[in-house]
Amino acid sequence: MDIKLNKCLKCFDGETRYYEHESKTTQTTMKFSAFMPKSKTVDSAIIWLSGLTCTEDNFITKAGAQAYLQDTSTMIICPDTSPRGLNLPEEHDSYDFGSGAGFYVNATTEGYRDHYKMYDYICQEVVAILNENFNIKKISIMGHSMGGHGALVMGLREKSLFRSVSAFSPIVNPVNCPWGQKAFLGYLGDMNGKAKKYDATELLKKGLKRDDTILIDQGLSDEFLKEQLLSENFERQCLSSGQKLKMNYREGYDHSYFFISTFISQHIEFHLKALK
Amino acid sequence: MDIKLNKCLKCFDGETRYYEHESKTTQTTMKFSAFMPKSKTVDSAIIWLSGLTCTEDNFITKAGAQAYLQDTSTMIICPDTSPRGLNLPEEHDSYDFGSGAGFYVNATTEGYRDHYKMYDYICQEVVAILNENFNIKKISIMGHSMGGHGALVMGLREKSLFRSVSAFSPIVNPVNCPWGQKAFLGYLGDMNGKAKKYDATELLKKGLKRDDTILIDQGLSDEFLKEQLLSENFERQCLSSGQKLKMNYREGYDHSYFFISTFISQHIEFHLKALK
Repeated sequence: MDIKLNKCLKCFDGETRYYEHESKTTQTTMKFSAFMPKSKTVDSAIIWLSGLTCTEDNFITKAGAQAYLQDTSTMIICPDTSPRGLNLPEEHDSYDFGSGAGFYVNATTEGYRDHYKMYDYICQEVVAILNENFNIKKISIMGHSMGGHGALVMGLREKSLFRSVSAFSPIVNPVNCPWGQKAFLGYLGDMNGKAKKYDATELLKKGLKRDDTILIDQGLSDEFLKEQLLSENFERQCLSSGQKLKMNYREGYDHSYFFISTFISQHIEFHLKALK
Repeated sequence: MDIKLNKCLKCFDGETRYYEHESKTTQTTMKFSAFMPKSKTVDSAIIWLSGLTCTEDNFITKAGAQAYLQDTSTMIICPDTSPRGLNLPEEHDSYDFGSGAGFYVNATTEGYRDHYKMYDYICQEVVAILNENFNIKKISIMGHSMGGHGALVMGLREKSLFRSVSAFSPIVNPVNCPWGQKAFLGYLGDMNGKAKKYDATELLKKGLKRDDTILIDQGLSDEFLKEQLLSENFERQCLSSGQKLKMNYREGYDHSYFFISTFISQHIEFHLKALK
């Protein structure tokens, strides 16, 4: 695939890089950032999926992950959260729908269905970039909030593609929260069959399951916990479905990157074990 | 002093905080961020001075310093880089003068002299906040680029106030570079006597000197090194003035926070020793 390196900045013992490419999936120019450790031959990758309003820049500048990856053979790749440069109806009107809010689904509604195919973009095109451009086959996935939702859904539906799955403050049951309902109505047209395929809790109910343990960190002072994230719905369903889950509730932490930066080393360690 | 806590976010074993207060020095509302470790009684502080275009938010979200301060008795405080909320002539016209570009001087030109007194704001008002509101007497200072310039100048002129001084990619000889010349002409009216009191290399020439070693890290792929930063001018003058200097030239690193985050742990360690 043709990918263009726009910036390459030395960082710890490695390089923070910014790329762009013409995406066949979204029919737009898509951007991603990456950190490439330099000390060893890189043979595996973690995909990071960001949350609402984010671009490819938030995680790579704020999470401090480079410090914990520099001496490993694992890169991280951080795609943007939606197509850009379009002007679809209502695309730029709110922070929780359209640009910056792709929700990692393949849209089916008019206008959006031609471009907002973030599920395929990640699972097919980003994975193909890792395969072809970086020669990487071993991949894990994690994300935050909307990106945590994406990581859980992809981890459950594409079991063999991802060696391990983790999330910070994920939206675990989008069909039952305002963010998810707005997004799914806008991208999918209803809250039924199609939508439930993009809901981690509903996927467990339908019998999808991973053999390995899913890792989640959730701050107990997270301002979105009760209305939007609904962590307990997923926890309960894991229990009744027999899905192994390590759920760390963290006293006093909120929804921000200050929370992510505190525990990112533990998530990286979790994925490094699975990627060995 | 009256300071108002606007946000307090748990981060590592401590709190990232955002404050504002009515400044007597600048006659504006000034903001700063801070990280307060929780494990020990805090008895010392590092002041961080940011560079051009920055606010109180850049360092605290991007440098990753919290990880290295969480188990110490030292807080960090990161003031904004200029007064805000004014509308002075040319104040918002360029990135390197006016808002976001206070250059840590006490302006004497019309309009600016009533508000742009960033030297006194840091050395008097921020220091008073540390003394009175946080009960801290032991203080060190560091900064980046324009803020590195501020840290060096304050460290040389206020020897007894700051226990140690360090800088990333500092502007070391502003009277001889375009950034400094533009700022000093705008804030001070000329490039002579007054301006030289805000130039670290010129201060050394005049005989000012610290007894302790100054620490500087400078990336060799820094896009501003040759035209604006002029590191070698300061290095040469330290040598002829007998000022102890640890100058680390870092192969491949640029001017960004990716560089700062790589070496911030070493600067913190340097200051912790002096603050013991």
